[in-house]
Amino acid sequence: MNVGGRPFRTVWLEDGCVRMIEQNLLPFRFEIVRMSTWHDTAKAIRDMTVRGAGAIGAAGALGLAQAALQAPDRGFHEAVAQAADGLTRTRPTAQNLFYGVGRVLRAIQAEGDDLRAARRAAEAVGREVADDDAECCRLIGEHGLVLVPDGARVSTHCNAGWLAFVDWGSALSPVYAARRVGRNVHVWVDETRPRGQGARLTAWELGQEGVPHAILPDGATASLMRRGQVDVVIVGSDRIAANGDVANKIGTYASALAARAHGLPFYVAAPTTTIDPGCPEGGAIPIEERSADEVRTVWGWSDEGRFVQVRVAPEGSPAWNPAFDVTPAELIAGIVTERGVVPATPEGIARVARVR
Amino acid sequence: MNVGGRPFRTVWLEDGCVRMIEQNLLPFRFEIVRMSTWHDTAKAIRDMTVRGAGAIGAAGALGLAQAALQAPDRGFHEAVAQAADGLTRTRPTAQNLFYGVGRVLRAIQAEGDDLRAARRAAEAVGREVADDDAECCRLIGEHGLVLVPDGARVSTHCNAGWLAFVDWGSALSPVYAARRVGRNVHVWVDETRPRGQGARLTAWELGQEGVPHAILPDGATASLMRRGQVDVVIVGSDRIAANGDVANKIGTYASALAARAHGLPFYVAAPTTTIDPGCPEGGAIPIEERSADEVRTVWGWSDEGRFVQVRVAPEGSPAWNPAFDVTPAELIAGIVTERGVVPATPEGIARVARVR
Repeated sequence: MNVGGRPFRTVWLEDGCVRMIEQNLLPFRFEIVRMSTWHDTAKAIRDMTVRGAGAIGAAGALGLAQAALQAPDRGFHEAVAQAADGLTRTRPTAQNLFYGVGRVLRAIQAEGDDLRAARRAAEAVGREVADDDAECCRLIGEHGLVLVPDGARVSTHCNAGWLAFVDWGSALSPVYAARRVGRNVHVWVDETRPRGQGARLTAWELGQEGVPHAILPDGATASLMRRGQVDVVIVGSDRIAANGDVANKIGTYASALAARAHGLPFYVAAPTTTIDPGCPEGGAIPIEERSADEVRTVWGWSDEGRFVQVRVAPEGSPAWNPAFDVTPAELIAGIVTERGVVPATPEGIARVARVR
Repeated sequence: MNVGGRPFRTVWLEDGCVRMIEQNLLPFRFEIVRMSTWHDTAKAIRDMTVRGAGAIGAAGALGLAQAALQAPDRGFHEAVAQAADGLTRTRPTAQNLFYGVGRVLRAIQAEGDDLRAARRAAEAVGREVADDDAECCRLIGEHGLVLVPDGARVSTHCNAGWLAFVDWGSALSPVYAARRVGRNVHVWVDETRPRGQGARLTAWELGQEGVPHAILPDGATASLMRRGQVDVVIVGSDRIAANGDVANKIGTYASALAARAHGLPFYVAAPTTTIDPGCPEGGAIPIEERSADEVRTVWGWSDEGRFVQVRVAPEGSPAWNPAFDVTPAELIAGIVTERGVVPATPEGIARVARVR
């Protein structure tokens, strides 16, 4: 997508280094950062310089390619295995991370002791993972176009736009596709506490693309639906279980319950790389719990142009901070993938899931 | 209740001035502020130095008493009427404000041209409104005790503790009552964006009273319920319609929907002064819409000990900021009042509503 008229991807490989948009500084500063080693790339995933299912999948894949390019001949496969392990230990929930790292790792291993071929494969497949992610998201936009007719008022949660993938996004891809064919669309953006990805990233993305939108507190979404101001909900996903249960940013489940109460269709948009066929149901998805300080504090931009952390709760109060929740399949109207829209059922999932 | 071992009320009259706890600075600084004129008191209600249904009801009543004490003999009744008007125009939703100001106004008017008696009545009835509020809240605790058995895990939204009333609180009064009889209670505190009254005020109150609690993002409440971590929801109210519909802080409705989905009892605790018998149903309750900047920014305490506002969204993004929402009566298990627990039905409401 475009930033100030220039095309950008969220993450890419250049001169053997992983480059990415520094998402912790958005929407206040647009900055490209360069990761010199896979350790830096892993750190960037952990500290959420790059975040979002597809974006961390590509970062993991490119990080492993980077590790292969830099590993010495002696102990090459051990170094690569260590990097794969380090890259996948950064975040526990997003399936795309395991997919991306695993695909590059298998490509490297397939070359055996031909290390030149292994490095070439690592780089090629790393780039392929990123390119595939972008292409899948573009196709999600085409398949999801039917959900966003002219005048549609779309509610979304967190950021499942192009910043969360390599390009185009998942939940927002149908919105961008609708805009490209000339439809009027309005997007309601949940703030998405505690890290505010809706208010910070989704609002910024939509603003860059000129898409009309408004931010609202997470607690206001149900009330907005009750007022008849929402036509459809589209969210992303970090992992989809074989039965159709979906893990996504904390607050997604609340939105799904409210949509159900108001008879609104609730869709999940995700590339099939987000599906974890080995995970039978949502209860088996590991849910990352993050620091209580993310709830007790807020990062923001001060009047003096400084990025500062302020405290918004008593220092002594405990806080619960699960990064994700699980929305059961029965609340989901359908899953929009690059292979089409399927029901959130074992049969629907099986129809589009990738065979590893 | 106690602050650092000293008993405090949220708002009171002293030497002809309205005094109150400066709630915008909590939990970081505990400060008593003095309102010299009714104009100052009205401003304090508007800027939320004092907030919460009962607390602004008492502030309004005491503000009008203050106006009567200070009004000159010539034009006394006009000055009082003007103050009553100014005080009630500060916030549109909370019924207690209209109740408190109205009760003092009628007491003044009943004395006709005997201005000495009118001033005496104003002060006495102003204090009565505050005392009644505290006593009603104490009784809410007694009636609500049955909802909080030993080991209960209570979910609440916003702040409906003693800071929201003159003393004891509404939703938290049964919790405090349960603690006084030796029960273990854990309170889950919704952060309550955009102004964070849960994280800032409820967490502080509970901490002062030594009540175990944890803060969570508003979007996490439904997920918490799904995990079986909540036994009962108790919230406050700013206005209750004759049919049992309840206006309360934005996000309350989302919590009620989640409670319904998980078979959890959802109670509203409020003194009968919150009931508006002239309001047929929730759709007729005026809902205050506040500045979009409350959503785009956050006030908090910096590391350097300064209270600062930081931006958390693009400057150019619109935001929707309704201060309240309406929870329909059918989602409410009961209303806990100083006259007992009644169903949220026209009959239940009529049984306890005050005749003006």
